[in-house]
Amino acid sequence: MTTSYTLSFSCHDQPGIIAQVSGAIFEHGGNIRGVNQFQDPQSGLFFMRVEFVTTCARLVLEAAFAHLARQLSMNWQLRAREERQRVLLLVSKFDHCLADLLYRTRLGELDMEICGVVSNHHKSVLNAPELDAIPFYYLPVTPATKAAQETEIIRLINELAIDLVVLARYMQILSSNFTAALSGRCINIHHSFLPSFKGAKPYHQAHAYGVKMIGATAHYVTTDLDEGPIIYQDVEAVSHADTPDDLVRKGRNIEQRVLARAVLWHLAQRVLMNGNKTVVFWS
Amino acid sequence: MTTSYTLSFSCHDQPGIIAQVSGAIFEHGGNIRGVNQFQDPQSGLFFMRVEFVTTCARLVLEAAFAHLARQLSMNWQLRAREERQRVLLLVSKFDHCLADLLYRTRLGELDMEICGVVSNHHKSVLNAPELDAIPFYYLPVTPATKAAQETEIIRLINELAIDLVVLARYMQILSSNFTAALSGRCINIHHSFLPSFKGAKPYHQAHAYGVKMIGATAHYVTTDLDEGPIIYQDVEAVSHADTPDDLVRKGRNIEQRVLARAVLWHLAQRVLMNGNKTVVFWS
Amino acid sequence: MTTSYTLSFSCHDQPGIIAQVSGAIFEHGGNIRGVNQFQDPQSGLFFMRVEFVTTCARLVLEAAFAHLARQLSMNWQLRAREERQRVLLLVSKFDHCLADLLYRTRLGELDMEICGVVSNHHKSVLNAPELDAIPFYYLPVTPATKAAQETEIIRLINELAIDLVVLARYMQILSSNFTAALSGRCINIHHSFLPSFKGAKPYHQAHAYGVKMIGATAHYVTTDLDEGPIIYQDVEAVSHADTPDDLVRKGRNIEQRVLARAVLWHLAQRVLMNGNKTVVFWS
Amino acid sequence: MTTSYTLSFSCHDQPGIIAQVSGAIFEHGGNIRGVNQFQDPQSGLFFMRVEFVTTCARLVLEAAFAHLARQLSMNWQLRAREERQRVLLLVSKFDHCLADLLYRTRLGELDMEICGVVSNHHKSVLNAPELDAIPFYYLPVTPATKAAQETEIIRLINELAIDLVVLARYMQILSSNFTAALSGRCINIHHSFLPSFKGAKPYHQAHAYGVKMIGATAHYVTTDLDEGPIIYQDVEAVSHADTPDDLVRKGRNIEQRVLARAVLWHLAQRVLMNGNKTVVFWS
Repeated sequence: MTTSYTLSFSCHDQPGIIAQVSGAIFEHGGNIRGVNQFQDPQSGLFFMRVEFVTTCARLVLEAAFAHLARQLSMNWQLRAREERQRVLLLVSKFDHCLADLLYRTRLGELDMEICGVVSNHHKSVLNAPELDAIPFYYLPVTPATKAAQETEIIRLINELAIDLVVLARYMQILSSNFTAALSGRCINIHHSFLPSFKGAKPYHQAHAYGVKMIGATAHYVTTDLDEGPIIYQDVEAVSHADTPDDLVRKGRNIEQRVLARAVLWHLAQRVLMNGNKTVVFWS
Repeated sequence: MTTSYTLSFSCHDQPGIIAQVSGAIFEHGGNIRGVNQFQDPQSGLFFMRVEFVTTCARLVLEAAFAHLARQLSMNWQLRAREERQRVLLLVSKFDHCLADLLYRTRLGELDMEICGVVSNHHKSVLNAPELDAIPFYYLPVTPATKAAQETEIIRLINELAIDLVVLARYMQILSSNFTAALSGRCINIHHSFLPSFKGAKPYHQAHAYGVKMIGATAHYVTTDLDEGPIIYQDVEAVSHADTPDDLVRKGRNIEQRVLARAVLWHLAQRVLMNGNKTVVFWS
Repeated sequence: MTTSYTLSFSCHDQPGIIAQVSGAIFEHGGNIRGVNQFQDPQSGLFFMRVEFVTTCARLVLEAAFAHLARQLSMNWQLRAREERQRVLLLVSKFDHCLADLLYRTRLGELDMEICGVVSNHHKSVLNAPELDAIPFYYLPVTPATKAAQETEIIRLINELAIDLVVLARYMQILSSNFTAALSGRCINIHHSFLPSFKGAKPYHQAHAYGVKMIGATAHYVTTDLDEGPIIYQDVEAVSHADTPDDLVRKGRNIEQRVLARAVLWHLAQRVLMNGNKTVVFWS
Repeated sequence: MTTSYTLSFSCHDQPGIIAQVSGAIFEHGGNIRGVNQFQDPQSGLFFMRVEFVTTCARLVLEAAFAHLARQLSMNWQLRAREERQRVLLLVSKFDHCLADLLYRTRLGELDMEICGVVSNHHKSVLNAPELDAIPFYYLPVTPATKAAQETEIIRLINELAIDLVVLARYMQILSSNFTAALSGRCINIHHSFLPSFKGAKPYHQAHAYGVKMIGATAHYVTTDLDEGPIIYQDVEAVSHADTPDDLVRKGRNIEQRVLARAVLWHLAQRVLMNGNKTVVFWS
C-alpha cells in the first residue's frame, strides 16, 4: 500500500546531503513528490523537507532514516500523511482564536486531533459549538497556585501524548521549566508585530506610540516572554481615528489568521527551527 | 479672482469650533470644498483641515483667521493652492530616495520647490538627472566638524527660506539644537518598521531577529533618534531565504514610497502633530 | 438629554451646502463631532456625513432636516447612535461568513439587531452557537418554486421591518424585482476580486486563469449579477502550488473580513451610493 | 574552477525525475545548493529548478543534460551564475518603468546586460541618467509603418542576440508574428490587475467601475492582448476621492515594482511556463 510521507530535518551543512537523502528514499521505493531545502551560511545549518510516496514498510523506512540521521547528525521528523498530530489548546477569556481554530478543524482545513482545551477561565466564558465535543479542562490559577497549575498542564500533555501545544490567547506567563519542556512544539500568538510592543496590552502600547499599522505574531515559545522564533506575522493599517478598542477589534482578525497559518504550517512540518529564527517552507 | 486655500489647524477641543471656522469662511465669501476633522479625547485637542475657494483678498482672510486663532488658541496654517513649499533635501550616499523624490517632482506628482540638495558626500556619488538643475551643497562632516556643518545647514535653511527639510537617507545624527529648530517641518525616513530596530543597520538587525516582514517609517524628526511622530509606514514580507542584502534591496522600494507619501501629505497640509503622534487626513 | 446622531446625505453639488447643514445643526443646539464630505465632479453630486450631539427633540430635528432636504433635493438618512438597524441574514450552505457576522455581533463589534437568518438549506447544515437564539427560516428553493420563495423572503423583510439584508454566501440568483426593492440596502459578498471572475465558481476560474492574487468583494446588490456598487475589496497572494481547494480555504478569511467591514461601514452610515460606485467615509 | 549553475526545466511528470536529475548532477561532481519543484496534476507537467556548483566542464555538463532532456522530453535551460542575459527594453513615452529598471541594473539589483532601448518616441522625451550609456533606437511607428517597424525590432533582437525583451510601458500592440517569435522571453507590464481592465486606459476603466483597489500585472506576452501567463501582480487601495490622475500616480509605483520583480525572477530562471499559467519558484 502506497503511503505519503513527509520527512523534515536539519543538520550541519556538508556536501552530498541531498544525494544521500534522495538516495535513501529511492532505495526504499520512494518517489519524491516535493522538495524544499535551505542552507544558512550564518548558522552553517542545512534544512530540508521532502514529500514522497512509497510502499515500503514504515519500520524499514524509519530504520533507514535513523541510520542516515546518525551519519549526518540530523534533527529529523518523519510523519505519514494520514497521521494527525495530537494538539492541546490553551486559552484564557478571549476566545476568538480558539473559536477560529476549532472552526477550521471542523472544516478539515486544519488536520489535527484536538485532544483537549485548557483554560484558566470557566467554560461558560467561552463560546464555540465544537467545544462540547472536546474534553475541557478548567484549571484556574492564582499567583500562589501557578506552579501547581503548570504541573497539571504538563501532566495532561504527557498523559494525552500531546505533539503540539497552542496558546490561543492564553495570557498566563509560563515558567522556564514549562517552556523548556515544550521547545519547538508550543506556538503562541502575540497580539503585536514583534519585536514591537512585547508584554501586556500591546494594542494600548501601539495606540500610545502612534504607529500607523498594527499586527500579530505567531512564534515558538521560549523562556523569554514574547521572544522565540517567529513563524508568521501580518499587519493591518490603522489611523489616528482608531481608539484602543478599534485596535483590539481589528487585531482579532489578524491574530486569528496569523495563528491559524502558523499552526497549519507546523502541522505540515513546514517550519524548522534555526536558532532564534525559523525556516518556513510554505510552498 | 478665485483662489483655492487650505486651512489646517489644531486647538483645544471646545464646542462650536466648526461653527466658528465655517462661519468665518462663509463671511469672507468662501465656499468649502473639503473638510476633515478629528477630536482626540486623550489629548483634548481638535484638528481640522478645510479646503475652500474664495475671491476674498489674502490679507483679509489671514486677518480673519488670525483673529479666530487668538480666540481659539489655534496652531494654524493657511496656504493657497498654487503656493509651492520651499524644500531642502539632505542625503548621504544612498540616493534611491533622493532620486525618487526628484523624479516625482519633475512629473508634477510632488508639488514643491526643491531649493537645494545637501549631502555630506560629493555630488559624483549621487545619480539623478534632475540634480544638475538644482543647487547642490557638498557639506562633508567629521566628528570634529559636526557642529560647524550643522550650523551651515541651518544657515542655508534660513537663507533659502526653507519650509520643509527632508532627510532622504541622510545618515548623520542631528543635534537637539537642529531638531528643535525644525520641529514639525523635518521629515526623516527610517528603514525599519518603528518602533522595531531603531538606530544603525536596521535591516541587519531585522535579519538577525528573524522577522517575517520588514518595513520603513517616515516620521517628523525630534531630539530622540528614530522617534518622533510617525506619519506613514509600510511593510513587505521577507523569508528565511532573504540575506541582509535582499532586505536592503526590498527595503529601498518601501523607503521610497513611504517617504514620498509622507512628503506628499505634508505638502498638502494633511498631517497635523498630536503630541508624539500625528493626525493624517489623507483623503 | 444629549443624543448622538449621524446624518448622511447626497444631493446635487451647489454652493453653501456645508453652511446650510452645519447652520441647521447649530440652530438646533447641535455640536458637530465629525464631518466627512466629498464632491464628485463627474456625477455632480455632493456627499456628506455628520456626527453631532444635541438635546434637541428628535422630531424637531427631523422636521428641520426634512425641510433642508426639500430645498437641496437631498437623499438623506438620520439615525441616533443607539438605534440598531434591523438586519436579515441570508445564507446557503457555506456558513463561514454567517458564523463570523454572528460572532462579531455577539462581541458587540457589529451593532445590529439580527432579526432572522434565512437559508435555503436546513439549519442542521449550519453551525454557530448564536443561531439558537435567532429566528431561523428554512426556505428551500427549486427552479419551480423560486418566485414563491423570493416572495416569502420579501414578506419577511416587510413583516420584520428589515433595514438591511446581508447575503452571507447566499448563492441563489435574485430576480430583478427582489433587487430593485432592496436598492442600497442589500449587501452581497462575492468571492472574487471584481470585476474579475463574476458568476459561479470564481476560485476555480481564478485557478484556471493563473492569477497570483485572489480576493473578495462586498457590494450592494443590483439587478446585474455580481455587479453593483463596490463597498470594499481585499486580496491575498496565491501561488502555482495552490489548488482550487487552497484558494477556497484562503478565500474564506478574505470573504469574512471583507463582508464584515462592509456591514460595519453600512451600519455606521459610512457608505453612500454614487451611481454605480460608492463613497466610503471610513474614518 | 568551481562554477555555479542553475538548471530549470519542465517535462511530463513521471517517476524518478528527481532521482535522474540529481544523479546526473552528482555524477558530474555537482553539489546541489538549491532545489524547487512542482507537479501540476492538471497539466501533468513536472517543473524543477536546481542550483548547483561543480568543477565539471560546461560542455560536458550540457551534453549530460541534453541526453537526459531527450530521455525525459524536457524543455530545459542551463545557465552559469555569471552569465548575464542580454536584454532589450522597449518603451513609449512614460518612462517610469524604464528609469526604474535602469536604476536597479546600475545598482546591481538586476543582473542583466541591457543591450539597447527601443522607443517609438524620441530620446528627448525620456529621462534617466543611464540612458546615455546604452544604445538607443528611435523607431517611430504609424499604422502604415507598423509591420516594417516590427521587422526592424525583430532584426535588432536577432542582431543583438537578445535573450529577453521587456515591454516597459511600450504601448504599441504587437502582431502575432512578433509575439510568437518571442514566446516565453517577452515580459509586459499591464497597468491593471488582470483579468480586470484589459486594453486601453485601464486606470480610467477602474475609476469608472468604482473598484477599491488598483493593480499592475507582469506577464509573458502572447498573441492575445493583455493575456498571457501572469508572472506577478500587486495591488494598492484606492478610494472614491482618487481621480483618474491619482490612480495613474499610485499605479506608477505598482507598475515599477511588479515589472522589476518579474524581470528579476525571469533572469534567475525562477519562472517556468505552464500552459496559460506560470510556476514561480521565488524562494
